Amino acid sequence: MANVIQERLSALRELMAEKGIDAYLIPTDDFHASEYVGDYFKCRKYMTGFTGSAGTAVVMQDMAGLWTDGRYFIQAEQQLEGSTVTLFKMGEPDVPTVHEFLEQNMKEGQCLGFDGRTVGSREAEELAQKLGKNQVTISCDDDLVGAVWTDRPALSCEPVKELDVKWTGKSRSEKCADIRKAMTEKGADVFILTSLDDIAWLLNIRGGDVHCNPVVLSYLAMTQQEILLFANEKAFPAEVKEVLNRDGVKLCPYDDIYSYAAGLSEGTTVLLCKAKVNSRLVNCIPASVKILDEENPTLLPKSIKTPTEVENERIAHIRDGVAVTKFIYWLKKNVGKIPMTELSVTDHLNDLRAQQEHFMGNSFDPIISYGAHAAMNHYSATPETDIPIEPHGFLLADTGGQYLEGTTDITRTIVMGPTTDEQKKFFTAVLRGTLNLAAAKFRYGCRGLNLDYLARGPLWEMGEDFNHGTGHGVGYYLNVHEGPNGFRWKIVPERNDSAVFEEGMITSDEPGYYVEGEYGIRHENLIVCKKAEKTAFGQFMCFEHLTMAPFDLEAVIPEQMTEKERTLLNEYHAQVYENISPYLDAEEREWLKEATRAI
Amino acid sequence: MANVIQERLSALRELMAEKGIDAYLIPTDDFHASEYVGDYFKCRKYMTGFTGSAGTAVVMQDMAGLWTDGRYFIQAEQQLEGSTVTLFKMGEPDVPTVHEFLEQNMKEGQCLGFDGRTVGSREAEELAQKLGKNQVTISCDDDLVGAVWTDRPALSCEPVKELDVKWTGKSRSEKCADIRKAMTEKGADVFILTSLDDIAWLLNIRGGDVHCNPVVLSYLAMTQQEILLFANEKAFPAEVKEVLNRDGVKLCPYDDIYSYAAGLSEGTTVLLCKAKVNSRLVNCIPASVKILDEENPTLLPKSIKTPTEVENERIAHIRDGVAVTKFIYWLKKNVGKIPMTELSVTDHLNDLRAQQEHFMGNSFDPIISYGAHAAMNHYSATPETDIPIEPHGFLLADTGGQYLEGTTDITRTIVMGPTTDEQKKFFTAVLRGTLNLAAAKFRYGCRGLNLDYLARGPLWEMGEDFNHGTGHGVGYYLNVHEGPNGFRWKIVPERNDSAVFEEGMITSDEPGYYVEGEYGIRHENLIVCKKAEKTAFGQFMCFEHLTMAPFDLEAVIPEQMTEKERTLLNEYHAQVYENISPYLDAEEREWLKEATRAI
Repeated sequence: MANVIQERLSALRELMAEKGIDAYLIPTDDFHASEYVGDYFKCRKYMTGFTGSAGTAVVMQDMAGLWTDGRYFIQAEQQLEGSTVTLFKMGEPDVPTVHEFLEQNMKEGQCLGFDGRTVGSREAEELAQKLGKNQVTISCDDDLVGAVWTDRPALSCEPVKELDVKWTGKSRSEKCADIRKAMTEKGADVFILTSLDDIAWLLNIRGGDVHCNPVVLSYLAMTQQEILLFANEKAFPAEVKEVLNRDGVKLCPYDDIYSYAAGLSEGTTVLLCKAKVNSRLVNCIPASVKILDEENPTLLPKSIKTPTEVENERIAHIRDGVAVTKFIYWLKKNVGKIPMTELSVTDHLNDLRAQQEHFMGNSFDPIISYGAHAAMNHYSATPETDIPIEPHGFLLADTGGQYLEGTTDITRTIVMGPTTDEQKKFFTAVLRGTLNLAAAKFRYGCRGLNLDYLARGPLWEMGEDFNHGTGHGVGYYLNVHEGPNGFRWKIVPERNDSAVFEEGMITSDEPGYYVEGEYGIRHENLIVCKKAEKTAFGQFMCFEHLTMAPFDLEAVIPEQMTEKERTLLNEYHAQVYENISPYLDAEEREWLKEATRAI
Repeated sequence: MANVIQERLSALRELMAEKGIDAYLIPTDDFHASEYVGDYFKCRKYMTGFTGSAGTAVVMQDMAGLWTDGRYFIQAEQQLEGSTVTLFKMGEPDVPTVHEFLEQNMKEGQCLGFDGRTVGSREAEELAQKLGKNQVTISCDDDLVGAVWTDRPALSCEPVKELDVKWTGKSRSEKCADIRKAMTEKGADVFILTSLDDIAWLLNIRGGDVHCNPVVLSYLAMTQQEILLFANEKAFPAEVKEVLNRDGVKLCPYDDIYSYAAGLSEGTTVLLCKAKVNSRLVNCIPASVKILDEENPTLLPKSIKTPTEVENERIAHIRDGVAVTKFIYWLKKNVGKIPMTELSVTDHLNDLRAQQEHFMGNSFDPIISYGAHAAMNHYSATPETDIPIEPHGFLLADTGGQYLEGTTDITRTIVMGPTTDEQKKFFTAVLRGTLNLAAAKFRYGCRGLNLDYLARGPLWEMGEDFNHGTGHGVGYYLNVHEGPNGFRWKIVPERNDSAVFEEGMITSDEPGYYVEGEYGIRHENLIVCKKAEKTAFGQFMCFEHLTMAPFDLEAVIPEQMTEKERTLLNEYHAQVYENISPYLDAEEREWLKEATRAI
C-alpha cells in the first residue's frame, strides 16, 4: 500500500505543478459536508491510505500531511507507515491546525487548490482571509484527485423509500410548514439545504447513498411555493415520486443546484448555513442576492425526537439489546472452545441483528476489537488485522443497527476470561462514569459541558482520561452522529454539539479508557432526555436509558463504587432483565438472570 | 421612606420634562463600572430606596422600575413597598431586561437620558443601536439625579498607601513592564484603564474610596514613556507620591482624563475595554484615534495570585479563621443566656477580627442574618430590621476581612439550638456540594461551567436549587468580587467569570439553600486553584481550601453523605483543628476538638 500511495502522490504533484497549485487540500467531505461519505468521495483515503472517518490531507511538492483526532492516532500511525505522509495529531500541544500549517508554510504568490464542492463555504472564506494576508491565492474549481483517480467508483444511486408517519410521528407537510414559518420569520425567500440527513428528515425519505447512513444524495431548495429536490431521478421508485409530487416536491437533476443557485434573482434573500453548504455552491449565488448565514432550521427539530419516535426507539433498543445479549452469552459460552476471531464474531452479531424485525442494516461499521486492538478506539477489523479471540482479557464491541424504529449504538466491553486488577479498576471507573452521567438530574438550560464531569470524574480523580468526546447526538433511523446535542468538556465550535438539552434528544453516553498496546474499555448506552419535575426553580430534566444490555459484572469491583452507583447499576440491570429475557431461550435467560444480578 | 422616594421621583420627572427626556436610566455604577460604589455615586439608591449592591432603575413620567437579580428579590420587594417603584425580577420568565423594556416602551421621537459617566461604553452603544431603530434619541451629558440631590455627599478622598512587594510578590515596575509588552504585541500606543481594582493592582497601591474595597478613585493612561494617574492629589501622602514618581507615575487631576482623551492625536491606537470604560470617556476620544476594544490586560494577571500572595493568603485565612471560630464558640456558648441580636453579634465578630494582626477592615458589609432573614441571601441587618437571636434554628454569617495578607470571605451557617429534620437535610445537601466542588480534580482547560454541577447536584437531585452563582473570584487585599474566574452553570457574558482556571486563582465555593420566610443555609470557603499531577493526558488541576473554620456538625446527617464526602469533611476539619487550635484558649480548643471530630 505504501508504494501505491507514493505513486498517487507523485501523479497528484505532477498535476499540481501543471496547474500552478503549490498545496492541495483534501478533506474527508463529500459535497454535503457529510461525516461519512460514499465511495465516490473517498479522495483523502485514496491519496493517503488512511481509512478513518475523520481527517484532512494536505499535499505540497515536498510534503504530504494527514491531520486527524485522538480517536485515530494509533490507527493512522500504522496506516501511514512508509507512505511518506506525516501524521499531525490534532489537539496535541505544538501541533498546528491545518489552517495554521497552511498559513505558516505557504509563501507569497503561492496558490492553494481544492475542490470547492468538498470544502464548506465558511471554511473557504476563513482560508481565503487568512492566506490572503500573505498574498496566497486560492483555486477551487478543479477536482485534481478525481483527475488522477482512474478507477473511481460511480456516484451512489440506491433506491429511495418513504418513511411513513407512523414511524416519524410528523408528516412531511407538517415539517415543511414549520420550516416555511421559520423562513417567514427570518425574512428568507429561499432556503437551501444540502446536508443529507436534514433532507431525509424533512421529507421523511430514506435511502442508502452513504454506507450505514440511510440518506439520499441530494440538494434541496425551498420557497413558500415550491420544494425542489436535486437528486438522481433513477433512485426514486414511481410510488415515492408520486407521494413527493403530491406534497409539492419536484425532482430536478442532482447537478442542477449550481445553475439554480446561479439563477437566483436580484434582491432574493437566501437562508443557508455556510458551515454546511459547500463553497462552490455559495460562490454560484449572484452578489445581488442576500445570504442569511444561519444554522439550518431543520437541525433542532430533527434532534428533538417526537413522542412517536421515542416510543419506537424503546422498541428498537429492546430488539437490538436482544441481539447483543445473545451475542454476549454466545461469546462467553464458546470462547476457548470454538475458533473465533474479531471478524467471525462480527458476522455472528450481524446474523443475530438480522434476525430482528425491521432491521435495516448496521448504523456504522462494527468495531469489534480484541485485546490491544481495543486501544485503537475506532479500529475496525480487516482480514489483514483480524486476530483470534482468546479466553482472557476484554473484547470491545461498539456496534449499532438501523431499524424502522430508530438507530442504535451500543458499546459493551466483554470479559473473555481472566482480567487483571488494573483492568477491573478501570472497567469499574468507566462504568461509574457511564452510570453517573445517565443519572444526572439538572435544570433546563444545561448543556453537555455542564454534565461531562460526571462521566470523566472517576478517571480524572486518578489523573486518567480518554481522548474522545463523551457522547454524540443520534438520529432516528438516520445518521448515528448528529448535532446539536452531545457531551464534551470543552466547546469545539465546529462540532456544534453543545446545545441545551431538550426533551426528546437522544445522546450517547460513552466514556472509555485505553492503554496503547494492551487493552481498551468503553461502556456506551444511548440515553433520551426527558422532563423531570417542574418546581419553583423551573423545569428539571433527566435521562432515560434506551440501550438494554448487561454490563459485564465479571470486571466490576463493587467496593470501588458508591452505594448510589451500585443502586443505579442494579436498577438498570433489573430493567435489562425485564425487557430482554422474554426474547431469550431458557439457557440464555438463566444466564441473563445471573448476569444482571444485584451487586 | 416611601413618601420621600415619591418626592424625589417627582423632582426628577419635573427636570426630565424640562430637558425633554422621556426615560431616565439610573445604573448602580460609579464612573469606573465598580460593583460597589462610594456614597457620592449612590444615585439609584437615592431615587428608589433600594439598598442592594446590584440593580438598575428606569424612571418615566408614568412609571418607575427597578431591575435586580435573585439575590435581592425579597429585600427589594420590602424596600420598594409604597414607593411606586415596580420591581422587575431579572432572569424570571417573561420579565423583560432593562433594554427590552426600553425598546418596548419608548416611542418614536422620544429621548432616553442618562449620565454617560455611569454607563459603560459598550452598553451605551448597544442601547443607541437598539433604540435608534425606533428613532429614539439619547442624551447622556446630564446628571439629572445629581441636579435634584441637594445633600449629595462629596467625592471620597481617602489616604493612599503603597503595598510593599513583600505582600504582592511582584513590583509595580514588573507589572507595568508586562502590560507594556502586551501593548506592543497588540500595537497599542496608549492603554486607558479605569477600573479601580485594576489600577490599585497595577500600581501596588491601596486606598479607601469605596466602602470595604481598598481602591483609589482614579483613571490611568499608560504609554511606553509615561503613566498618568488621574486622581485627587490630596489623597496621596508625600512618600507615596515619591515612590510613584520614581517609577514614572505622574499624578494629574481626576477629571482631566476627559480632556486627555479628547487631546489624543490622530492615528494613535488606544487599548481600552468598552465594557469597563464609561461612555462619556470613550465619546471624548477623537474619531481619528483607533480604539482597540479588548479585555484589560490587567484582568488575568490580577486574578492569578503570585506564590507570595498565595502564601500570604494562607496566613490571612488562619487569622480570619481564628476570629470566626472564636465567634462560633462564643455564640453557641451564650445564645439564650445573654441578649444577642444580629447587629450586636456582628459587632462582636468585628471586634474579634480587629484583634487579628494586619486586619484592615471588612471586605464587605457583614451579612449576619437570623432565621427567616437568612432567606434573603444578601440581607444586611439595620437598626430597623435587627432581631434577637434565639436558641433554635440557624444563624447565617457571611462575612470577610481585609488583611495585608489578602481578602477573606467566609459563610458559616451556625446551629443556635434545635433544628428540624428538613433543615438538617438541606444543610447536609449544601455541605456535600461545597465539599465536592472543592475536591474536584480536573484537566487544565476546565471553567466554572464544567464543575458547577458538583455543587448543585445534591440539590438538583431533589428538584431544589439556589438562586445565585456558586462562586466568584476574590482579589488580594482588594475587591471581594473580581473576574474572570467563578462557578456558574450558565454563561452570563457580562459577568465575565467563566475563565479557564489557572494556578493561583482564588474563587469562592458557596452553594446555599433558602426557604422564604423560614430559613437560609449557605456554606462558603475560598479555594485556591493549584496544579495537580501532569500525566500523559496533560496537566491536572485541583483546589486547596484557604478558609479555615468548622462547619457545624450539629446539623450534618452523616448517613446522607457518601463515604468519600465524610472523608472530605473529616480531612478538612482535621486541617481546621491543626491550623486554628494554637490560637485558641483552652476552653475554645477543647470545644473545637469536638466540633471538628471525625464523623
